[in-house]
Amino acid sequence: MLRLLDAITSPADLKLLSDDELKILAAEIREQIVDTTSKTGGHVAPSLGAVDIILAVHSLIDSPKDRFVFDVGHQSYAHKLVTGRRDEFDTLRTYGGLSGFPKPSESPHDVHTAGHASDSLSVALGLAKARELRGTDEKIVALIGDAALSGGMAFEALNTIGQLQLPMVIVLNDNEMSISRNVGALERHLGAVRSSARYRQARDNSQERLEESGPIGKAFVAFGRSAKDSLKQFFVPETVLFEQLGILCTPPIDGHDIPALRAILRTALEADGPVLVHAVTKKGLGYAPAEKDPVRFHGIGPFNRTTGACAKKAGKPTYTDVFEKVIMREARADKRIVAITAGMRTGTGLEKFSLEFPDRFVDVGIAEEHAAGLAAGLSFGGLKPVVAIYSTFLQRAFDQIITDCALPGCNVVFAIDRAGLVGDDGPTHHGVFDMAYCRMIPGMRVLAPSSEAELACALHTALKGEGPYAIRYPRGVGRGEAIPARPAVLHEGESVEVRAGEDMALLAFGDRVAPALEAAEILAEQGIQARVVDMRWVKPLDMQAIAKAAETKLVVTVENGVMAGGAGSAVLEEVNRLGALVPVKVLGIPDLFIPHGKTDKLLADLGLDAKGIAASTLEAYSEVR
Amino acid sequence: MLRLLDAITSPADLKLLSDDELKILAAEIREQIVDTTSKTGGHVAPSLGAVDIILAVHSLIDSPKDRFVFDVGHQSYAHKLVTGRRDEFDTLRTYGGLSGFPKPSESPHDVHTAGHASDSLSVALGLAKARELRGTDEKIVALIGDAALSGGMAFEALNTIGQLQLPMVIVLNDNEMSISRNVGALERHLGAVRSSARYRQARDNSQERLEESGPIGKAFVAFGRSAKDSLKQFFVPETVLFEQLGILCTPPIDGHDIPALRAILRTALEADGPVLVHAVTKKGLGYAPAEKDPVRFHGIGPFNRTTGACAKKAGKPTYTDVFEKVIMREARADKRIVAITAGMRTGTGLEKFSLEFPDRFVDVGIAEEHAAGLAAGLSFGGLKPVVAIYSTFLQRAFDQIITDCALPGCNVVFAIDRAGLVGDDGPTHHGVFDMAYCRMIPGMRVLAPSSEAELACALHTALKGEGPYAIRYPRGVGRGEAIPARPAVLHEGESVEVRAGEDMALLAFGDRVAPALEAAEILAEQGIQARVVDMRWVKPLDMQAIAKAAETKLVVTVENGVMAGGAGSAVLEEVNRLGALVPVKVLGIPDLFIPHGKTDKLLADLGLDAKGIAASTLEAYSEVR
Repeated sequence: MLRLLDAITSPADLKLLSDDELKILAAEIREQIVDTTSKTGGHVAPSLGAVDIILAVHSLIDSPKDRFVFDVGHQSYAHKLVTGRRDEFDTLRTYGGLSGFPKPSESPHDVHTAGHASDSLSVALGLAKARELRGTDEKIVALIGDAALSGGMAFEALNTIGQLQLPMVIVLNDNEMSISRNVGALERHLGAVRSSARYRQARDNSQERLEESGPIGKAFVAFGRSAKDSLKQFFVPETVLFEQLGILCTPPIDGHDIPALRAILRTALEADGPVLVHAVTKKGLGYAPAEKDPVRFHGIGPFNRTTGACAKKAGKPTYTDVFEKVIMREARADKRIVAITAGMRTGTGLEKFSLEFPDRFVDVGIAEEHAAGLAAGLSFGGLKPVVAIYSTFLQRAFDQIITDCALPGCNVVFAIDRAGLVGDDGPTHHGVFDMAYCRMIPGMRVLAPSSEAELACALHTALKGEGPYAIRYPRGVGRGEAIPARPAVLHEGESVEVRAGEDMALLAFGDRVAPALEAAEILAEQGIQARVVDMRWVKPLDMQAIAKAAETKLVVTVENGVMAGGAGSAVLEEVNRLGALVPVKVLGIPDLFIPHGKTDKLLADLGLDAKGIAASTLEAYSEVR
Repeated sequence: MLRLLDAITSPADLKLLSDDELKILAAEIREQIVDTTSKTGGHVAPSLGAVDIILAVHSLIDSPKDRFVFDVGHQSYAHKLVTGRRDEFDTLRTYGGLSGFPKPSESPHDVHTAGHASDSLSVALGLAKARELRGTDEKIVALIGDAALSGGMAFEALNTIGQLQLPMVIVLNDNEMSISRNVGALERHLGAVRSSARYRQARDNSQERLEESGPIGKAFVAFGRSAKDSLKQFFVPETVLFEQLGILCTPPIDGHDIPALRAILRTALEADGPVLVHAVTKKGLGYAPAEKDPVRFHGIGPFNRTTGACAKKAGKPTYTDVFEKVIMREARADKRIVAITAGMRTGTGLEKFSLEFPDRFVDVGIAEEHAAGLAAGLSFGGLKPVVAIYSTFLQRAFDQIITDCALPGCNVVFAIDRAGLVGDDGPTHHGVFDMAYCRMIPGMRVLAPSSEAELACALHTALKGEGPYAIRYPRGVGRGEAIPARPAVLHEGESVEVRAGEDMALLAFGDRVAPALEAAEILAEQGIQARVVDMRWVKPLDMQAIAKAAETKLVVTVENGVMAGGAGSAVLEEVNRLGALVPVKVLGIPDLFIPHGKTDKLLADLGLDAKGIAASTLEAYSEVR
């Protein structure tokens, strides 16, 4: 079947299409997104929700001369499809294929490396300032969701945008959801705006005007002497928060009505200052299962095209599942335990907690800095907060972990999910820095559990302990171990020898313990008896185990994290402090941003699977014998 | 002379004072602050501006049961004086004496470790949530300046505060300034609120009501059936930003009028939800030189009590002065250079830049995350942004440095001022983590100049180069070197041998090069010829210099930064990679938060001055000989 989509080779082609044709194209793009993601998995619901906005914007601007900036970027699939990547679209999120996020090295139409929330406005403002200084005239559009607006960085940017008054269009993709349902006073404010009489009136007016005015977009300019004038009479009054920051704001419009979007956008693009176009959308629109369950379809693995059902989960629970089970148990036993998530109650395994202990659960929205500060306050108030955040996003709270939590010795537990390489989401999402950035913080205890049981014990230990703890565990399924009914309190800085051996010692951290054990078996086939130690604690390290390891012929450290300053580097510091002259081989993530792809494949490429560990170890061992 | 202040042993004593007596006390406290800080230096202007608010709050609450949370905390001197620390007040900011900031280990009246901006609201909310869960009834008050509100973390907190609706009082200390003049749309919004007819009307009403109502504070409750009702009719309408986030907001009141403050606060403390008390103050009030020049008196060294003049500066320029000179020169030669500060245009040496190149300068307010994101956008727009931020505050942008700047390889230069120990401001302000957290970022180049000339060359190199750079330089004066008229482009990863020697090698970073040279002379007296290398680059390291050093009997690294994952740790990684079996002694900041005190004293205590370096080196050398 012939598709309009197949004729689109660049966004310039969209200018040739009528509104009706754009509508058809939008439907085709939705089909394509569902087709592809049913095989590859991906961010289905957000991308479906943003199709019409993306087409409307691209039909009016001239990318890549004009700059279209995405926030987070998981809603960018339509953008990828109309910017020359249709034929590669089936490679989405596969190794060597298209990234799931905008990526400048992939296309000149991708302005920045999106992936983390709330940064689009800062980037767009930078582009606008650069335009001013260079004296050029390109248009600048940023697309940001309502959830990303809860991130403090977005507010910081609005503060400067309102001050500098440089022309730029901010499209607020308001789907009343973040990844799961949205939270916070800002969200309530947007809700009030959406439902206010003023909005309804403005909306009716806008529709009338649109109807009166015939061909798209010309209407508004005709209503006043300048774009600004027409915007002013059209736009909403100053009770809207953005207006108070000096940013002209439209009433909420239907974010799936391409003619209406184009009309408003055309006017907004002519304004001589910043304009926020408030577009209300439905996450998952056009694919019934995603409309019905946008949380599950936010980011999803391969699914059945017809039913929306996912391929059956592997039998083993994920580390997130284990965390969920354990924190529920702990919370039932200790009323002081409070859980905090930053807009990820499902992803971090806190959905059940939020239902059973609604009073003891706070979802702060995409606001990691505040999450850490709030935890400090809860600790000062005598409680035991657990802050569950993905490793890569916790980077946002680095300063607060140091200053608000560790310096005064607060009882805060950071449950760091998605630690290590995360696979398909790629370099913006790999959680590879956490061991390095946590271990440099005085007073911080850092645990890297190697199994489900170890995670249960680590969490139990942290909740029984005093002062700040960080527990990092990987994305995906565990080793199929049972969770102990009564998890033990782990001795601080005590490792576990999981395999005896006197020739050399493999000191492994977290999820690299299992492959290290396998590697030891490979080495045994070569006649080398390797001790394998589950180090458990990145900080404090087990000095005795390290001293004992230093008595063998070779020490090898293995971690799923950066080598620069990481856990192996910490071992090296201690071996050096001991004055031991044993050779140490450090294995981990090299000094590069690692691309997307299946985690196993990436780890194998980096020599961090059993085979790779064995090979590196053999090579190092051959040199010392 | 007998003072009221001398009779105050705890804040409870304030309850016994009349309004007139509180006014007298406020004047005495101002005298005391000026007296002490004229000898010790300190945050004079902010502390003078907040005296009346602090007395009004403490006269109504019951600290430490009730919790009074400070933001940044440099305005807390009056709080220290009335919470049992009057007799030690002369030890302010001296080694072993009182901290310049609230510090829980110093007093139960200090709730959290203040020092970094914008965290008070998160902490206060945590306390309020803990109160709810514990079922207790203590009052919670947070004092935050208008500048700190521009930090995204504060907005994130307001978002949750508006949602949870837990009772707490936020006192906005609105002095229309941050450290220097304030910026941003929020500031303009507050200005509009201050000057609006509505405000004036509300203010007049409030004064009338106060006058009518006689004894302090009772007035408002009388105006309605409940505190909430009376607040509602008294407070300002929903055009104020905070109101839209669900936070009841008073009209601006005179923050030096203790009876008015107490009246409003008393009502606010009775409210059953969050209330923001908008207090307008004058920075430096009560000391003419500070009123006249609040920027200079924000944080100041010892000064002449009568004239306000500072002790003459040492002849040598500071590193900040050098940075200022060099960036001006570079900016005149290259129009693409843009400078960004986060609320610190004077402190970071960008005042002159902002005057000569107003279009090429952006002060984003206290918003480090956005500063880094904005820089990424400017780089995408073809410019060369220089982001000048103190080391300790740049921790706030850790994620943005990684994701927004380094991952796409942006041309951004981070000029990291106040790197290393900073002295009197203490643990919240020491910039000791930067080498460790920057060197783990792929693609980042990290320079640690050892002198004025080296700083000039480093900045020149970074501006001529591609990709992200971090240049870290210390607080205070340099070595008295001339700045080269034509700074050289430094070869990447090339160190400088500044003293020859074959017995051992001292690899020194940044400001530790000079004491390392001195240490080498001490060693020479013992017959040990130590090579001294100015490493210059923390990343990439000079592999040749390290290999050559490994041929001597001992390698010693010295840095003014944390040892855990720091520059010495990086050297260790490379020595290990080379397979060299030379002993390495790493000198730097140990795994502790370092207290406040004179930098030289702290460095000497840590063995990082010439004498300490020589002693550690001798000891290590005696073991390897």
